Amino acid sequence: MSRTFEPDPARLSLNSATLRDQWTLAELIEACARHDIGAISPWRDKLDELGVARAAAMIRAHELTVTGLCRGGVFPAADAAGRRAAIDDNRRAIDDAAAIGARCLILIAGGLPPGSRDLVGARAMVRDGLAEILGHARSAGVPLALEPLHPMYCADRACVNTLDQALDLCDEIDPDGRVPDRSGHAPKAALGVAVDAYHVWWDPNHPAAIRRAGAHRLLGFHLCDWLVPTTDLLLDRGMMGDGVIDLPALREHVYGAGYDGFDEVEILSTRWWAVDGDEVVRTVKTRHLRCT
Amino acid sequence: MSRTFEPDPARLSLNSATLRDQWTLAELIEACARHDIGAISPWRDKLDELGVARAAAMIRAHELTVTGLCRGGVFPAADAAGRRAAIDDNRRAIDDAAAIGARCLILIAGGLPPGSRDLVGARAMVRDGLAEILGHARSAGVPLALEPLHPMYCADRACVNTLDQALDLCDEIDPDGRVPDRSGHAPKAALGVAVDAYHVWWDPNHPAAIRRAGAHRLLGFHLCDWLVPTTDLLLDRGMMGDGVIDLPALREHVYGAGYDGFDEVEILSTRWWAVDGDEVVRTVKTRHLRCT
Repeated sequence: MSRTFEPDPARLSLNSATLRDQWTLAELIEACARHDIGAISPWRDKLDELGVARAAAMIRAHELTVTGLCRGGVFPAADAAGRRAAIDDNRRAIDDAAAIGARCLILIAGGLPPGSRDLVGARAMVRDGLAEILGHARSAGVPLALEPLHPMYCADRACVNTLDQALDLCDEIDPDGRVPDRSGHAPKAALGVAVDAYHVWWDPNHPAAIRRAGAHRLLGFHLCDWLVPTTDLLLDRGMMGDGVIDLPALREHVYGAGYDGFDEVEILSTRWWAVDGDEVVRTVKTRHLRCT
Repeated sequence: MSRTFEPDPARLSLNSATLRDQWTLAELIEACARHDIGAISPWRDKLDELGVARAAAMIRAHELTVTGLCRGGVFPAADAAGRRAAIDDNRRAIDDAAAIGARCLILIAGGLPPGSRDLVGARAMVRDGLAEILGHARSAGVPLALEPLHPMYCADRACVNTLDQALDLCDEIDPDGRVPDRSGHAPKAALGVAVDAYHVWWDPNHPAAIRRAGAHRLLGFHLCDWLVPTTDLLLDRGMMGDGVIDLPALREHVYGAGYDGFDEVEILSTRWWAVDGDEVVRTVKTRHLRCT
């Protein structure tokens, strides 16, 4: 029932953040075609720069899959107007994701509003925000993939920090929702999770949480590595194989739970942003085969 | 049954790491007496520098409580000789903790051995190491306080990263152990946990885990704050009140669970290490009253 665990370059997706400083989205799309990479996952700033209609046309012309649009979420805000603006922005992101045929919209929770120490309150704002946009996502046929971020981002980026915490929200807000199947694969929940190696590898409970999620809620699988030492909290992520994450074991958990999507490579790294783009892509392909 | 939640400067303990660059242990002991601080918690390098016998005599002379000795643990190693050396070092640490009358020996798990990606294996080495030193700790009357460290230290410092993970180990290795009561307070488990605000604040399950630990396994309570932004993974911890942790709420959880020890201030910060020692101590006392 689950796919083989062999890495397959045709099932690679390239997240635009991996080549943030090298390429526009148009250049990324052309590079993926040139390197026989089957899918991309753009960030919204890159998408806005190219324009949604032009991006959709280029993606269709090159027959690329869009594994996700990065990213919505970021619900907590200091006041009602701020929270309303976040909801509106998420609706636009859902529409853009639908327009480019993205398999999901990646969401991060958001951190504490400036000056706040109310983590319980911020988490309640995340729950309320998710509940408010879910209907729009269902109508648009865009599953929402809540990506728990590493606990070191709790204060300023995302206060949802483990897969179980994300899955508790899924179970509460979307107990049995389904969206139309766009991909020809198993139907997906309207609200699920994205599993990013960088964020979950340390969690002793991540294998059980991945099983708990199941094919239905596993909407994305992101690869990179944890470097030792890590010199920057945000922009020192590693190429697969350069760090300490047991990626083959993680892959086996994810595919063993029925995940049927792509292996998306998302590496935020000032080091790799300084390397020639085609060289990065060749390294990604090699490392994907050798280290996952 | 539980103590009042009012901060009380007489129940402050000063961890030597807070004044790492300013003072020797002898100077720290004299400063605590000068500032009416009731307890200290030395790191082993400072203790070795002064000598255990001299330190014990000075601590007795100034009638200071020793809330803990920092630190043992660090069990994973690449080979059997390395693991044996860690056990031997932990036995020495237990003996030193007994010699200075420390209420516990603080343990951190240790990270992955160099070159290893086997996190499951490293965690098994932690369990085996704890089991091996527990008898010696019991005989010496020194409770072992396993301190889960923030998940960002999983690779290189400590692969026990949540209170629940630590408590699972306690329940497995020390299901009903007791050590003689040195403090005149409730009897303690031979193996328990230290709750450090910096490491646990993000965990959605920390309130439940603190209740789960109970007075019996709550062996230490460490205070500092999480700064936004955090610019260094290790040495950018904040003075209480300068960051985003809801310290009064955490304190209420800890004391509400029956904790009857000191509030220990441990701030690893290049910023504070550059400030005059007496000024740091005055700030610690003020902030303890105002922000916890």
